[in-house]
Amino acid sequence: MKPNFSLRLRIFNLNCWGIPYLSKHRGDRVKRLGDFLNMESFDLALLEEVWSEQDFQYLRQKLLPTYPAAHYFRSGVIGSGLCVFSKHPIQEFTQHVYTLNGYPYMIHHGDWFCGKAVGLLVLHLSGLVLNAYVTHLHAEYNRQKDIYLAHRVAQAWELAQFIHHTSKKADVVLLCGDLNLHPKDLGCRLLKEWTGLHDAYLETRDFKGSEEGCTMVPENCYVNQRELEAFPFGIRIDYVLYKAVSGFYISCKTLRTTTGHDPHSGTPLSDHEALMATLCVRHSPPQHTPSATHGPAERSRLISVLKEAWAELDLGMAQARWWATFTGYVIGLGLLLLALLCALAAGGGVREVAIMLWTPSVGLLLGAGAVYLFHMQEAKGLSRARAELQHMLGRAREAHDLDPESQAALFLGQQPGTAGGGQI
Amino acid sequence: MKPNFSLRLRIFNLNCWGIPYLSKHRGDRVKRLGDFLNMESFDLALLEEVWSEQDFQYLRQKLLPTYPAAHYFRSGVIGSGLCVFSKHPIQEFTQHVYTLNGYPYMIHHGDWFCGKAVGLLVLHLSGLVLNAYVTHLHAEYNRQKDIYLAHRVAQAWELAQFIHHTSKKADVVLLCGDLNLHPKDLGCRLLKEWTGLHDAYLETRDFKGSEEGCTMVPENCYVNQRELEAFPFGIRIDYVLYKAVSGFYISCKTLRTTTGHDPHSGTPLSDHEALMATLCVRHSPPQHTPSATHGPAERSRLISVLKEAWAELDLGMAQARWWATFTGYVIGLGLLLLALLCALAAGGGVREVAIMLWTPSVGLLLGAGAVYLFHMQEAKGLSRARAELQHMLGRAREAHDLDPESQAALFLGQQPGTAGGGQI
Repeated sequence: MKPNFSLRLRIFNLNCWGIPYLSKHRGDRVKRLGDFLNMESFDLALLEEVWSEQDFQYLRQKLLPTYPAAHYFRSGVIGSGLCVFSKHPIQEFTQHVYTLNGYPYMIHHGDWFCGKAVGLLVLHLSGLVLNAYVTHLHAEYNRQKDIYLAHRVAQAWELAQFIHHTSKKADVVLLCGDLNLHPKDLGCRLLKEWTGLHDAYLETRDFKGSEEGCTMVPENCYVNQRELEAFPFGIRIDYVLYKAVSGFYISCKTLRTTTGHDPHSGTPLSDHEALMATLCVRHSPPQHTPSATHGPAERSRLISVLKEAWAELDLGMAQARWWATFTGYVIGLGLLLLALLCALAAGGGVREVAIMLWTPSVGLLLGAGAVYLFHMQEAKGLSRARAELQHMLGRAREAHDLDPESQAALFLGQQPGTAGGGQI
Repeated sequence: MKPNFSLRLRIFNLNCWGIPYLSKHRGDRVKRLGDFLNMESFDLALLEEVWSEQDFQYLRQKLLPTYPAAHYFRSGVIGSGLCVFSKHPIQEFTQHVYTLNGYPYMIHHGDWFCGKAVGLLVLHLSGLVLNAYVTHLHAEYNRQKDIYLAHRVAQAWELAQFIHHTSKKADVVLLCGDLNLHPKDLGCRLLKEWTGLHDAYLETRDFKGSEEGCTMVPENCYVNQRELEAFPFGIRIDYVLYKAVSGFYISCKTLRTTTGHDPHSGTPLSDHEALMATLCVRHSPPQHTPSATHGPAERSRLISVLKEAWAELDLGMAQARWWATFTGYVIGLGLLLLALLCALAAGGGVREVAIMLWTPSVGLLLGAGAVYLFHMQEAKGLSRARAELQHMLGRAREAHDLDPESQAALFLGQQPGTAGGGQI
């Protein structure tokens, strides 16, 4: 690679809102999205909520001349909804399905059936290794009483860990997607602190688009206005995040979003706004590359966010265990009820009523059994993420305590935590 | 790191057969395993089938002075059964739970409930980065009619991909575990060809232990002799596999297995045999490190095994889709039956019989619904692995076709496949 190497990358990201039979004007929007992507000819277009594989196949055919490489990430019962179109050949791809992703009995929310995941693409561009990730985390249905908070934090951690462990030899890391996290939400901070990824919206000097970079805005006719009541400008939950390793420097030259309208005419392309970023990658002498995670201030921030995430997962685990215990009691009660009904049916008298009650009681028993198993699994999943967090917290604290600047801060009254196995 | 750097690693692997209430002499065996590990003081002890977390906690306490670092990989309803004890600090750990792992309705086989996984540990030893993986794949219950074959092949591929993507910056890669695969089984070949891992048993010049390196032998009193009828020496399904990246050279100095008896006295430690390997890592000039995956012969082998795996997953997908279609019909039938029963119950006459049949018909409906969803998910999981395989197959073929030696082979009658998207 030449020392004056420079690479410009044009990236597109959109949550397409492509639910068959439910999303309005789906066919028309997918068609217009295809036209737009063909016209703009991005290097990489990363899409979420393409729930119908037919839509993907339609786009693949339509985009083939401009984006010869494409992939749809399959998972769950329905699919992950994630897909990607690339102007450049895809060297490798794989995916990681999140361990926790809502509850199967919350059928009206549907997330569990999707098998939400993170997809990874490895691209080689002029000798540079680019790891591009696309993801979609669990939706937030009620911000005040968010029953999926622990799951989303666990997903953010799994995402951060997947990126951390699979990008060690990448020169540039790019993450696009709908995180369903506001910029200051725990999951978003955890992801950024642990991976060292930078937020294109916060980094760029040339932004044009919706107010405050929001990706769900009240101007969009597909958005449920009630959901945005507390946020007059809308919410920012879709992101373009990036970083370069030592030896490279990456910056976001421009960032554009749609603003609740079609870029040309007609209705918007989706209920989310599209993100369009122009990134520039340059060579940089290793010593000039700023280290995002090695200063004492960064370490303090990391320790604080790891602690916060640990506490959130701990709460989630207590909740999961409570449900497992509760359904355990329901199973016991169901068994007793069934025995009683059998006795009544055999004894005559209220025989018909007893037989009629068999169905609901067997249903109760099976349902409670399934919910019990599910919450046992949930507790295991949360416990796994908590153990990983705890380990990294211990290591971050050790590094922090060993740091001379942190030692000085300690004497000045700042209190770093103590490193320890079981303690938090 | 010094140029004459050399590192000796003593590794222990055992499938512990630690099923609470079912495995014979479990408590006693765990105790003796602890004594043995303490006495031998390995660098790393990797265990499978430690199903009870209490057993892990007991071992952790007992082994703390010799192995200060330990981790239990939690997943599924029961747990992954995987754990590790290390003499050296563990820098990082994470895990990947296999997407496909048997069927929840095969309760007597139980694999689905375990959440089988691969665990990863990152260790820094004298400046060397060691990625150690421990895993346990789906059991084989009937070799002649193996309904889990596609799942095990998909697991082997996910394992290979996980290692491939997470070990790019590791100097040494180590994989231990119970693969439930014979050395020449498709999954084993796929794993070795894709990752370039070497088999300690085949590589070492100093082997002592059971005949042909078998890890389930008829001499072991816990082994079901009927299962080994076709294999007079036993079967080899537990492995120590390793590789070093360019710049390092790794070899297996010695490999020992137990031989169906306790190393000292009493019954064997498990129904599997333990593997004990001494590995030696040395510096090596990059050009002297043999490349395992870049020659045309290796590429031919890779192409052949990728094709074979693709075909196996394709068969599995057809099977999964057949089950989804079949259960779809059962759901339709169940709905009809329920409507009929409601009509009969309302109409009188055979009312009691109709009401009595409600329970089984509702059960049938719910059961078929769950099985339908499960097989839809299964088809998605297999299709995902097949797509990854197909992509890598295309790339391997392109590389093979571009290779001058392969071109020569082509003229001599060897037929490399054609690279292409949908073709295999």
